[in-house]
Amino acid sequence: MAEMRVDDVLRSLDAVIAARRDADSGVSYVASLLRRGEDKILEKIGEEAVETILASKSGDARAIVHETADLWFHCLVMLAFHGLGSEDVLGELQRRFGVSGHEEKAARTSGEGGS
Amino acid sequence: MAEMRVDDVLRSLDAVIAARRDADSGVSYVASLLRRGEDKILEKIGEEAVETILASKSGDARAIVHETADLWFHCLVMLAFHGLGSEDVLGELQRRFGVSGHEEKAARTSGEGGS
Amino acid sequence: MAEMRVDDVLRSLDAVIAARRDADSGVSYVASLLRRGEDKILEKIGEEAVETILASKSGDARAIVHETADLWFHCLVMLAFHGLGSEDVLGELQRRFGVSGHEEKAARTSGEGGS
Amino acid sequence: MAEMRVDDVLRSLDAVIAARRDADSGVSYVASLLRRGEDKILEKIGEEAVETILASKSGDARAIVHETADLWFHCLVMLAFHGLGSEDVLGELQRRFGVSGHEEKAARTSGEGGS
Repeated sequence: MAEMRVDDVLRSLDAVIAARRDADSGVSYVASLLRRGEDKILEKIGEEAVETILASKSGDARAIVHETADLWFHCLVMLAFHGLGSEDVLGELQRRFGVSGHEEKAARTSGEGGS
Repeated sequence: MAEMRVDDVLRSLDAVIAARRDADSGVSYVASLLRRGEDKILEKIGEEAVETILASKSGDARAIVHETADLWFHCLVMLAFHGLGSEDVLGELQRRFGVSGHEEKAARTSGEGGS
Repeated sequence: MAEMRVDDVLRSLDAVIAARRDADSGVSYVASLLRRGEDKILEKIGEEAVETILASKSGDARAIVHETADLWFHCLVMLAFHGLGSEDVLGELQRRFGVSGHEEKAARTSGEGGS
Repeated sequence: MAEMRVDDVLRSLDAVIAARRDADSGVSYVASLLRRGEDKILEKIGEEAVETILASKSGDARAIVHETADLWFHCLVMLAFHGLGSEDVLGELQRRFGVSGHEEKAARTSGEGGS
């Protein structure tokens, strides 16, 4: 893991979800969720969004991180359901915010740490 | 942008949000949102979650990507509100799914492409 | 208004919504909402549900009542969109909980006021 | 039940919820939910709102009525948690829409039935 960049995680998760897609739904949560269908995945997105909101109100950093991770994970499963992946969403964010290596460096220099 | 990896996007966005945090709220949506307070950010997370759900039901790939990007972006603003960032969430996902450079490679080999 | 029972309100609102359905959408919020279509109504249900949740967390009774009223109202508009009304939902609740004039009286006697 | 008006249902449910509040949580869902605390009730409101949205998209009248009933019921439990009841919400709707016995009659006459 040492040499892996932390932000490869979403791409790796896309791969894990795709790999588990056709697994036995008795052993794989992802396979089970995909077989229960789109509405079940969307219910989970709704549930996790509300749990993220309540975690934020609690102010508990551990809960905030945990619930946001749950929310993003179920979004990845929904994207996979549609044959999409995290790269599509990240590409959209990149275009929208004009985030580039250059701007990123500028942003980091202007005082909020990073790297 | 050429040499930037697409999955640096979330980290770059954390930096952009942090940089805009103290900007004039007349010109920065992020500054304006952070000044309107936590509940306003959480309302946006709820709204975008529902728009993501409706986009999924529409089956329109462009809308799905657009709304998921909105949802993740507002999660990043919420994380910034609490002094957290995408790295915390990605670290949690990495721990939870045991995603490592090695497993990632294994997953990629087992048939779902990737870069 | 004196002689009207407060719980005739939902039935009256069904009627108001039906009456405004074909009104000029420039003057009627209900007409405007119905013309913008189902997804717009559903987005409002999602928004108002989250605002109800946040109002509950605030503990502010006025906000709780205000947001719950918003949520129920948009549910009535959604029901009207489908040719349904509050009576359908109240009938379901009545069947489910076996609420009858008799049980109601019993419940009221067992110590929580009412009337 | 014969002489009970269908729209007494919400008031009756307030009474049922209040009566079950202190019941054994092993036998009463309401008691169990109230003991698990506010966040658990709010999670249910979020879940039922999303299930109502998905039921609407399905177009299945039975599911729409069922999920809306679930949503309203959990709102009543949340109101009870705060010492409020359906009457507060209905009073707010009445004030807001100026629904009165008179206007109601006018609305009913203008062509959408009612009892």
